[in-house]
Amino acid sequence: MLTATLLTDFGLADTFVAQMKGVMLSINPEVNIVDITHSIEPYNIRHGAVALGMSYKYFPAATIHTAVVDPGVGSNRRGIVVDDGKYIFAGPDNGIFSVIYAENKVTVYEITDERCYRNPTGVTFHGRDVFAPTAALISNGLRPDEVGPPIVDYQSFDIIPPSKTGDNTITGEVLYIDRFGNIITNITAAFITGCGFKLNGRLVSLRENYAQGQDGQLHALINSDGYLELFIKQGSAGLRWAGVKTADRITLELSD
Amino acid sequence: MLTATLLTDFGLADTFVAQMKGVMLSINPEVNIVDITHSIEPYNIRHGAVALGMSYKYFPAATIHTAVVDPGVGSNRRGIVVDDGKYIFAGPDNGIFSVIYAENKVTVYEITDERCYRNPTGVTFHGRDVFAPTAALISNGLRPDEVGPPIVDYQSFDIIPPSKTGDNTITGEVLYIDRFGNIITNITAAFITGCGFKLNGRLVSLRENYAQGQDGQLHALINSDGYLELFIKQGSAGLRWAGVKTADRITLELSD
Amino acid sequence: MLTATLLTDFGLADTFVAQMKGVMLSINPEVNIVDITHSIEPYNIRHGAVALGMSYKYFPAATIHTAVVDPGVGSNRRGIVVDDGKYIFAGPDNGIFSVIYAENKVTVYEITDERCYRNPTGVTFHGRDVFAPTAALISNGLRPDEVGPPIVDYQSFDIIPPSKTGDNTITGEVLYIDRFGNIITNITAAFITGCGFKLNGRLVSLRENYAQGQDGQLHALINSDGYLELFIKQGSAGLRWAGVKTADRITLELSD
Repeated sequence: MLTATLLTDFGLADTFVAQMKGVMLSINPEVNIVDITHSIEPYNIRHGAVALGMSYKYFPAATIHTAVVDPGVGSNRRGIVVDDGKYIFAGPDNGIFSVIYAENKVTVYEITDERCYRNPTGVTFHGRDVFAPTAALISNGLRPDEVGPPIVDYQSFDIIPPSKTGDNTITGEVLYIDRFGNIITNITAAFITGCGFKLNGRLVSLRENYAQGQDGQLHALINSDGYLELFIKQGSAGLRWAGVKTADRITLELSD
Repeated sequence: MLTATLLTDFGLADTFVAQMKGVMLSINPEVNIVDITHSIEPYNIRHGAVALGMSYKYFPAATIHTAVVDPGVGSNRRGIVVDDGKYIFAGPDNGIFSVIYAENKVTVYEITDERCYRNPTGVTFHGRDVFAPTAALISNGLRPDEVGPPIVDYQSFDIIPPSKTGDNTITGEVLYIDRFGNIITNITAAFITGCGFKLNGRLVSLRENYAQGQDGQLHALINSDGYLELFIKQGSAGLRWAGVKTADRITLELSD
Repeated sequence: MLTATLLTDFGLADTFVAQMKGVMLSINPEVNIVDITHSIEPYNIRHGAVALGMSYKYFPAATIHTAVVDPGVGSNRRGIVVDDGKYIFAGPDNGIFSVIYAENKVTVYEITDERCYRNPTGVTFHGRDVFAPTAALISNGLRPDEVGPPIVDYQSFDIIPPSKTGDNTITGEVLYIDRFGNIITNITAAFITGCGFKLNGRLVSLRENYAQGQDGQLHALINSDGYLELFIKQGSAGLRWAGVKTADRITLELSD
């Protein structure tokens, strides 16, 4: 069975996601629809891009990933299909696929073919009326180059790469805070030397896993995605450090 | 694969929904179970009826929709199966299918056949012990007229249709507030003239889409379901207008 | 189609669960993955054990249940596969399968075979890198005794059985509080005589179902799992009795 994933900021309380699934199953009753998450912060394209970047590569080859975080829906922003040679992506052209562009060689197509539009097209819900049918048609064999012409001027934004901002300082950014309050940054293992660093003047020591943390202490580890993560054992680093959020800059002072 | 949907007020934190799915898969391991939502306000049958009405028609023909919002479970209210010629519905006879009745010619059957009851029947959980097995058996080929006798005195309630309540005033009701705080009413495009209206004395101007809204301003649009929706661009109309909820009446003063 | 369930404390906001599903579908694209719940209280193994115990038996024979509530991830606690003759379970050896052990004759295997480990193994996410591949391989035909050697010293804890703690007093514990605020205890019907009891000095009368409750009154019933449940009709017993939580002891005074 072919897998089609959905990532949105629609939540699961309303019926938006179910409407998308109904449209997809009406076109291809055999497609296996899997939710990545529907809890992207509303309208936060950057959060959506990071969450998609964290998860897309665990799925089987040929999976079709649909991502809809779309504050500009109804405006002139285009709908696109992205082909990276292994996966296909469908969604708005607003930067939601920025991590995909950064990590892969891609071809991007604007969705113009009328087969991809439900009739009549709803003006406020392209997720149901454009992206869901497009993804389902592709799961049925429609080729990406059949949805419309290739484009090269698609929207993208940088996740600021971590960098040395002084002899002993590294600046990165917060990718997201997870359900446990762990703060995941974009700082990778290669930037970290020694067994800890200072953050806002306080010492944070590195651990190999959560179980090694001392109760109530802020610690860091390199997580299973290879990123530096701040945690408090069975506590919430995010609560301790209230107000931290996606895309905040973070600066570490390494020890000499 | 045949699709069976679930709509309840059970939430996803407990295992009620999983128990229903387990029962269904034990009867038909091939049925494709799709969640519509499990976040209906607890015991709010009206909310459930509206959410089902918003979503059922996007699914493939022959989909079996099970809806359980059931404050009267364990009392004498009946379990029913509804056949509208395209879809089959299973759930309590308490008005949860009111929108289906309003939009379609239906036949309604009371669930009495013992095949539809798990043994022993739990007294507090008809979702798992009556409606799930009934839906799964129907997905396996049981005909609706085999679950029990047809009935005509099934429960229904009206969603108050919008109406002109004065020369320039339209009264409707709030269908629901979505995750973004957008307030969806039952007032349809045909009732709206001009480019805006007054609500509680304040001018609300119509837009074609969210992107056209002015920051911080309450606006309205006709959404992709054809209903009047109040929104604040990247904000929450529901928060602005605290306390608004499903079934509240709403009166618009159209301009002369 | 073979069913594989997931029960975790990961929530659905992050992409952890989706990463697990992607790994499983990459190994077996035909497996039908069903969520039991991902809302176990973070790190609360006891809550996870109770939720799994409430739901596992409703699924078809041969279902593979993966449960991950794992505060000790990355420490030396083992990964295990449990075979009870009807179902297979995969997860950490920390007591999460205590109810399974109590209710069934089981064989337990430590997961040591390298086929069960993604390469390189992430240190913080055994759910994705050990348990998901193990469950998917089993769904593909790997036998439980192929994952590693049988062990007998697996971790388990008791759910305190209800007991008579005086001539007229019964002590049990709170299993969980559900979404409606109903308080589910481990006290079974056999312990209850008469038509009510005193709890904290106040009379609580038994009902047969929720609909029989008086508005605003705390009542009890024997629920469809056979357990004593405290409820307020269309209200929240949990809110009324603020602070009650999983594993709290509860003592009933039966009438003479």
